[in-house]
Amino acid sequence: MADQYAQSHEGGGRIRTPSIRWGEPPEGPAVVLLDQTRLPSEEAELACKDVPALVRAIRSLAVRGAPLLGITGAYGVALAAVRGEDVDEAAEAIATARPTAVNLGRGVRRAHAAYRAAGGAGQAEAAAAALAEAKALHAEDAEASRRMAGHGLALLDELLPGNRHRLLTHCNTGALVSGGEGTALAVAIAAHRAGRLRRLWVDETRPLLQGARLTAYEAARHGMPYTLLVDNAAGSLFAAGEVDAVVIGADRIAADGSVANKVGSYPLAVLARYHHVPFLVVAPVTTVDPDTPDGASIEVEQRAGQEVTEFMAPRVRGVGGVSESRSVAPAGTQAYNPAFDVTPPELVTAIVTEYGAVSPVTTDGLVELCARSRQVTMS
Amino acid sequence: MADQYAQSHEGGGRIRTPSIRWGEPPEGPAVVLLDQTRLPSEEAELACKDVPALVRAIRSLAVRGAPLLGITGAYGVALAAVRGEDVDEAAEAIATARPTAVNLGRGVRRAHAAYRAAGGAGQAEAAAAALAEAKALHAEDAEASRRMAGHGLALLDELLPGNRHRLLTHCNTGALVSGGEGTALAVAIAAHRAGRLRRLWVDETRPLLQGARLTAYEAARHGMPYTLLVDNAAGSLFAAGEVDAVVIGADRIAADGSVANKVGSYPLAVLARYHHVPFLVVAPVTTVDPDTPDGASIEVEQRAGQEVTEFMAPRVRGVGGVSESRSVAPAGTQAYNPAFDVTPPELVTAIVTEYGAVSPVTTDGLVELCARSRQVTMS
Repeated sequence: MADQYAQSHEGGGRIRTPSIRWGEPPEGPAVVLLDQTRLPSEEAELACKDVPALVRAIRSLAVRGAPLLGITGAYGVALAAVRGEDVDEAAEAIATARPTAVNLGRGVRRAHAAYRAAGGAGQAEAAAAALAEAKALHAEDAEASRRMAGHGLALLDELLPGNRHRLLTHCNTGALVSGGEGTALAVAIAAHRAGRLRRLWVDETRPLLQGARLTAYEAARHGMPYTLLVDNAAGSLFAAGEVDAVVIGADRIAADGSVANKVGSYPLAVLARYHHVPFLVVAPVTTVDPDTPDGASIEVEQRAGQEVTEFMAPRVRGVGGVSESRSVAPAGTQAYNPAFDVTPPELVTAIVTEYGAVSPVTTDGLVELCARSRQVTMS
Repeated sequence: MADQYAQSHEGGGRIRTPSIRWGEPPEGPAVVLLDQTRLPSEEAELACKDVPALVRAIRSLAVRGAPLLGITGAYGVALAAVRGEDVDEAAEAIATARPTAVNLGRGVRRAHAAYRAAGGAGQAEAAAAALAEAKALHAEDAEASRRMAGHGLALLDELLPGNRHRLLTHCNTGALVSGGEGTALAVAIAAHRAGRLRRLWVDETRPLLQGARLTAYEAARHGMPYTLLVDNAAGSLFAAGEVDAVVIGADRIAADGSVANKVGSYPLAVLARYHHVPFLVVAPVTTVDPDTPDGASIEVEQRAGQEVTEFMAPRVRGVGGVSESRSVAPAGTQAYNPAFDVTPPELVTAIVTEYGAVSPVTTDGLVELCARSRQVTMS
């Protein structure tokens, strides 16, 4: 297990296979991925020993999740450099492996810049610089996870009367999308390690079942007391007083504190408010987008109706494997399939970042938080 | 097509195959069912020519839905009688084909009682009496559907400012569970026939996907403007102002007006209240259970976790066909899987029955409605 990943698991993590690690010789040089297309039925590593293999892995979704893709991109540039290949060409190939993955390009550019900056010292030194940069990005992401987990758990302890929390989460926000233990799920893991997690309620998260496939997998690996449910059943849990807090991640946070996250988050926020249950959003500060003034300005991605009308079985064979699908609706059925929804700031109890929490959620509070994060970064 | 079914479709229904009909010679005598295990991929009739075949059809879920099972049971007794078989034995076999289906036993007993009452006049006359009773039950159910649809549409027209309604529904409440066009779905069909349905939003209804498989099928057959969505996406529709009213059915209504219905109904009620959208429950008056004082007294059935952890593909071959399943969660995952949830009366805008609507929903209002229904029945 690579150092930087082991670091992120200090304190009792039980995931045997990191989502990503750098493979040294004789195994490598390689970017070694936990093949997410085989989850949850099989926990297998996929060693990408050259750039084409890594590009195939990215395209096939063997690796996914915005922060994790950034780290993957950086390691990919390092791989090309260590192998003495054309790094410019490799960077281009990796960055464009998935067109809409912004973090992928960012990670690629960061390692690429480090490689070029060290170029004068020779090929080996430049390659070492690229690899060091990839490892630094990986470590930073893990560190951000740790900090979010700490701030989130402190807030839960402050908000909730009991010290045995029952948390409800949605989608997947753990190690499978991150270089560390993730965002919202990292908070639940921290509570578990501290002996303060009574129950993790896992929404299955239709249509793509990230909760059932991935969050349940991570929870099982950590030995957490978790229970899966269809998204429809969350209301019954609230009504029965079985949820102490909701913890979710965020895809984007507008300047006013509106939170775009996986579809189904907003109904949870309304239920949480109706039942006076805290609703916590956990995300790195880079998720706050000052250029998006409010919720109405967030463009919601509409995805293909087939995600709803056809059941996509998990891929059972790694890269290149085909996903089986089966129609569950009459032919010709049209589906409304927004990828995420928007929760207004008045329904969010707190936004928890690696630089602390904002609560209540206000524009001023977010501006202050962002300023604080820049000071820390510059100091 | 049987008369009573054709009747229920007067005014433009487009379902080609009734959920149930009596098959006369040379096709019969037979109880002819629309095989629901083949929906939505195939619309096939299943002619049950003897009691064992009918019992197999009930057990395999080729026919399902409380009121429809009652009608099926009554026709089954008539089938045994017409064939000159041991009617007592047949009644017992049919009534116990599914242990928890209360309506099934009720329908069986009704036809059986008619058979016995006419027994003195001879076997042929007694058989004719049983068949007449089954047809009467079928016609009554269709008539109740028509009345609920009429009352429901009148209420929508009264509550909503526009005359082009956008209705959201959950689960399946149409002809596939009824001798007529159903309960909540019958209201939407009535709106469609009157040219006042702008959109029917169909929740897929996890875990068993009755919305995707059955409601979408019925909506398509009627040529309704419908759109399917994952249950998670309903919140986005409310937030966008795309829902004018929610129409759902009920499994049981307590004396105080608490409504037990398919899991996911309660979250819709909370969303509807948050967005000031009417929430209508449509059900026959027999759904009101005066012996259940309130929501807390309703015992919620917990179903097998496999409905959540394994995806059940629709059965593709009729009676006796096996349902394919595929695991979507890690082995050993426990699931919380309540079959229904309870919506308190304060979140229900109106309960619509074949004897009119109760709004606001109060114990006194329900008592009055039940009294009215008994007067009508006795008069």
